[in-house]
Formats: sequence, structure tokens, C-alpha cells
Amino acid sequence: MRRWGYRHVITPLVESMDVLDLGLGVEGRRRLFKFTDSRGDVVALVGERTVPVARLAAGKLRGAALPLRLCYAGPVVSTDEARFQHRRETYQVGAELIGASGAVADAEVIALAARCMEATGIRRYQIEVGHAEFFHGIMDAVRLPDGVKAAVRAALAARDFVTLESLLEDTPLRSAEHELLLRFPALRGGLEILDAAAGLVRNERSQRALDELRSVHGLLVEHGIGEVVSLDLGALRDFDYYTGVIFEGYGPDFGRPIAQGGRYDGLLARFGRPAPATGFVVQLDMVSDMLTRVGRTSAVPPLNAAIGWRGEEGLRTALRIAATLRLFGMRAVVDTETRTAENAKAWCEAVGAANLVHCADEPAVTWSARGQRARRLPPEQVAARIAGGAT
Amino acid sequence: MRRWGYRHVITPLVESMDVLDLGLGVEGRRRLFKFTDSRGDVVALVGERTVPVARLAAGKLRGAALPLRLCYAGPVVSTDEARFQHRRETYQVGAELIGASGAVADAEVIALAARCMEATGIRRYQIEVGHAEFFHGIMDAVRLPDGVKAAVRAALAARDFVTLESLLEDTPLRSAEHELLLRFPALRGGLEILDAAAGLVRNERSQRALDELRSVHGLLVEHGIGEVVSLDLGALRDFDYYTGVIFEGYGPDFGRPIAQGGRYDGLLARFGRPAPATGFVVQLDMVSDMLTRVGRTSAVPPLNAAIGWRGEEGLRTALRIAATLRLFGMRAVVDTETRTAENAKAWCEAVGAANLVHCADEPAVTWSARGQRARRLPPEQVAARIAGGAT
Repeated sequence: MRRWGYRHVITPLVESMDVLDLGLGVEGRRRLFKFTDSRGDVVALVGERTVPVARLAAGKLRGAALPLRLCYAGPVVSTDEARFQHRRETYQVGAELIGASGAVADAEVIALAARCMEATGIRRYQIEVGHAEFFHGIMDAVRLPDGVKAAVRAALAARDFVTLESLLEDTPLRSAEHELLLRFPALRGGLEILDAAAGLVRNERSQRALDELRSVHGLLVEHGIGEVVSLDLGALRDFDYYTGVIFEGYGPDFGRPIAQGGRYDGLLARFGRPAPATGFVVQLDMVSDMLTRVGRTSAVPPLNAAIGWRGEEGLRTALRIAATLRLFGMRAVVDTETRTAENAKAWCEAVGAANLVHCADEPAVTWSARGQRARRLPPEQVAARIAGGAT
Repeated sequence: MRRWGYRHVITPLVESMDVLDLGLGVEGRRRLFKFTDSRGDVVALVGERTVPVARLAAGKLRGAALPLRLCYAGPVVSTDEARFQHRRETYQVGAELIGASGAVADAEVIALAARCMEATGIRRYQIEVGHAEFFHGIMDAVRLPDGVKAAVRAALAARDFVTLESLLEDTPLRSAEHELLLRFPALRGGLEILDAAAGLVRNERSQRALDELRSVHGLLVEHGIGEVVSLDLGALRDFDYYTGVIFEGYGPDFGRPIAQGGRYDGLLARFGRPAPATGFVVQLDMVSDMLTRVGRTSAVPPLNAAIGWRGEEGLRTALRIAATLRLFGMRAVVDTETRTAENAKAWCEAVGAANLVHCADEPAVTWSARGQRARRLPPEQVAARIAGGAT
């Protein structure tokens, strides 16, 4: 995220209900862990961080020019444990691009989410991209009583197509949009489904959504992630919240999404700084579970060097070499106890370092890169040799 | 911390009281934010992370070879708001070196704490190093009733030397250690105070502590931080917890310490994996307050490149250049809207990037490093030129 220009922000864990009431829907509020603080105010542990970040952008950071690129990492808590795979708390990282509308911004956030999923160490992943406005346009266009609309929406959200069909059969009018609603689950695939949907849609709102999806899809190909992206026009998400392109990221075993995001152009205004925005969150605990299931651990970068020593002079040399390596951005550990060159080998393997350096009470030190024979050289040459091998 | 070989771990925010009861003293438990979870169990929000990390090292990581180098970052919560500068929660980063005893390990942790304070952006800082055993040895040696010992300890902790004096005057025996207790506040300075104390101390426990402090001090000089370290034999800290070398780090305006740490060889045994350990915590909110007071913000690394574009082909080129820069580990932002080369300059300054690249619908792009005239060159040369300038 940092490489994409996103700045790390830390938002409070304990938020006042006033703030959360402004930003969250009924469901989000219900799931909060609430309690009374020492002043008697009702506060809650945050259940997500998009609302706190929006508040930060509209509050403390209101002087900062838009667009703002912000990212965060931290625990969130929910009373609904089923939501977090039977965990009371879960660890999320996320990014928000605030103050930018349009396909370039939407594509940036989706591409960044893809790179983040990649960086977690999962081997295969898929991203499904949809659009909140596509559905809104259809619901505007179909002439149905509000009660029936709500029922249609609930049936679609639950992917209950039997109920959906009977609801639509009972309605007098049959428009192209009725037809579309029935075909919702099929609106999933490549660019061809945009053509198919465009042939059926008659309302401008949905047409605009299809145009935007086409632009975003083209940009995702340019971002180099065309192969992991598919379109899902039938994706139903929290539509009071999302206002444009939305997406979900899945790991190799599908199931529940490990990443979720989309455009939410209405949220910032609630905190007094109207601005378009888009962002996403990655559920790190779910990623970790997924890696554990396939017998892998998350990618911990190995140490560049383990530095052993013998005697006071050896220790001094070891500390100096470590300081130089760290200055170059490398990861180095100095042994906490004295060890012979022979014993140091086993220690180096135990800590998993790519290079072993051993410093005894003499001018030259011993250096061995993994799998290579040991060489003796002056201490001031060690850092350069290790850096050379590391690139 | 990563460069020193410390591995980032995430411990729960909500911990069961069983775990915290094992690790925390009476005071630590009293300050916890406790509540009942949906199962009816009493849980608490963590108020520090050394105990959770110890539990992790003795639990999930019990198979990992010692020494373990672990670090963490996250919020902690306290009901005692005065403790966190009138904050309900505060953000802490810390490191623990588990399974290593001796001066090399003690010095490593103190030197790492110094580098961390430096990395926060504060200009001047100071570290005071003491030893828990020095005081224990003296209290063993003085022949006083337990009640008087407790009172002496309380007076010393509160730096109430009037009470201290009257307590010691009332006791029949006057030993070298009595003398030492009265001189406690003066036992602060450079290596010379070790000699002064050594001349007064008669008990082995305190003598050993002085020897250890001498070794650690020597190593801190080797670590290159001799100038910011002073010794404080009169430092009184949580002595039920600390068992050896202890230290505190101060920013330019002193007051309360922004970093605290020391050796705690007894904690891991409580979780079933006896091991020596030392570590520290940095109070990031206090650092942030300190930087704000002197009109500085914490050091955010600037963007390496801002990439503007015009036209579809220009955007494609911009995305490609950004991807290459990020692969090289650089931080690059692609504009979310089209802009002329002229307007892009102001935008580049607003985002604070060191290089501006502008891609129009033509083969060559325009590159200008901060303060230098613009040059036109093929897109595939841009990343190398920016990387060259960045090193």
C-alpha cells in the first residue's frame, strides 16, 4: 500500500456512538460491542474502519488536499461471531482513496487489492467486480409496489430464485428489466455479459453502470490483472452504502470473500466534507486460516545474516557489521552468546539466515552464503558482499 | 525492528481474564477494561502486550527454537486515563527478546529501543539504565522489619526523601547499605557512579548487578549509543516484574518516559515455558504529542514519483511505469484524472513527490526531478533514472 502512495493512519479502537451512528447502518450498529466508559458515555469497539477513516479525512485531515490515499491495519470486534469465522475479533488491513471519482480511481483500488492479496502469500485468487447502480437502475425501472421491491431485493440477496420467480410472476407488467431480474444469477462472467445486459437494459442508470464497468475492466487489464477479474452484475451487497463499482476478492477455495470493497460516495458528506471515495478491506485472519489449511505459513522474509562471535573483539566486530547491514536495509541478528565457528552453523540454520558471518578475536571474519563454502575476508567487505548476493 | 530480526506478531485485543490474571500484577489487573462476552465469560481489553506475547511464545510458538525475537504494534486500553496522558487508549509498539540472558541480549534490546526512538523523528533523546537487583540486594542486606522495608520502598518510589530519611533514622543499625539508600537519588550519571556504588555495597546481589551494568554499558558504547545513555541506580520500577537490567527512554522535554523496558526472567515460567526474557515498549501517542509540540510531524517517507497522463495511451504508459517503480520498491502515485503537463506540476507538488512523470499520447514521456528542468525520454528508461536519482 505504501508503494502505491497510501499513508498509514491509526484510528481509535474505542469510538463514541455519536460518530458510529453517523456512519453505520442499522445492522452495523447492532453488531457493535458497546459499553459505558468512566465518564458514563456510551462507546463501542469499532467493527470496521472505513467510517473512522472517513471521519479522520473530514476532521483532523480536512486541511489536506484531495485525493487522500490512506491505509490502516488493526483489530475490529463484533458481537456477531459467525461473521468473523467464529472469532470475537478479527484483524483487517484496508485502504481508502478519498476525493477521486471515475474509472481510474476505481481500477486503482481494485488493482491494489489484488496486489495485497498476492502479497499475503495465497497462490490463486479471483476478483469479482459489480456495480451497485446497475441494480438501482433496474429497481427504478420496474413498476412494482415498494413492498414487492423490498421482497425482490431480499430474495436476490439470499439468492433465493424460487421466491424471486413467484414474486415477479404475480406482477402485471413484464418489461425487459423483469427479464433481467430473473436472469440475475447468470450475469456473471467476462466482458460478454456486459453486451448481454446492455441488450436488455432500457434505463440510463443501469446503462451508465455498464459503461463504467467496461472502462474499469479495460483498466484492470492494463494493470495486469485481467486474468483474475470476472464481472458479476448479480452481486448484491450493502446497497445503502455502496454507490458505484463494487468488488470482492476470493482465495483458492472460494467460500466467503477475503477482500471486499467498492465506491461509497455518500459517506464523507455525513461528516461534513462531501467527497467521492472508494476503498477495500482484507480479512487477514481468513487469509491466515486459508494458508494454514493448505499447509503454508505466511511469507516471513528470511534474515539476510546471522552473525556469530567469539571473544570481546569478535563481539565488537559483529555489532559493527550488523549496524552496517541494517543501514543498508538488511535484516541481521547478532548472536546473544559466544559460539565457535562450528556451532554457529547450526545456529544460523535454526534462525533461517541466508548468510553466516563469524567473528573471532582476529582481523579477518568468516563468511558463508547458504550452500557455499566459507571464505575469510576483512570485516569492512562483508556488508558489500552480502548486499551483492542479496540483489 | 525487522532489520534487527524481530518478527511481527499479532496478539488478541480481547483476552480472557485467566491469561491476564496469570501474567499481570494487582495494579495491572485493576486498570483493565473488563466486560462479559456473549458466552458469559469475563474478558478484558489488553492494557499492555508483554503478557500476551509471553503467552504466545509459551503457547502457539512453543515449538519455535529460543531465542525468539518478536515485535508488535497496536492499541491498548486502560481505565486509568491519567496513565496514558488522559487517553482511554494508546498505541504502543514493542519488542521482546525471549530465551536469551546476559549482557549481550540486554544491550541489544536497549540499542534497538534507541534506534526506534530515533526512527520516530524526535531529535534528542536520552536513555537511563538501571538494575532491579541492585535495590533487591540492598533491601536484603539492611536489617529492617518488613513493614519498614515496604515504607522505605514506597518513599523511594515516590522520591520522597524526607520520609525516607526519618524512616532510616529510626532504625538502630547503620550499615553501608543504609548510607546507600540515603544517597539513592544521587546514584545517577556516568560510569563513575558504578565505582561510587561499588565502594559502598557489601552484598553480592547488588555487586553482581553493578558488574552487569558495567558490561551492558560497555556494549552500548559499541552499539554507538554511549552518548545518550546514563546510569540510574536509584530508578525504582515495578520490581515484582523486572529481574535485571531496566531502562527508560526520554524525549527532549523529559517528563514521562516514552520508552520503557527491561529484563523479566520470571514471566514465561507462569505460562509453562521457563525462559529469560527482556523487551521494551514505545508509547507512540506520547511521541506524536511531543513532535506536535515542537511543530513537527512524524517522518512520512515522501513519494518517489507522481505520474500524470493525458489520453488513453498516456494512461496506459503511466500505469506501466508505476508498476515498474513499485516492483523496485519505490512509492508511486498515478493521477486519477487527466491533466496537462503544465497542471501536473502543481499536482506533483501537492502530493509531495520527488519526481514528476507526465505521459501524453506519444512515444516519449516527460520527466523532471525536483528542482531540475524537464527532460523527454522513452518510458522504459524512466524507472531506472528515478531509481538512480533515489539512491
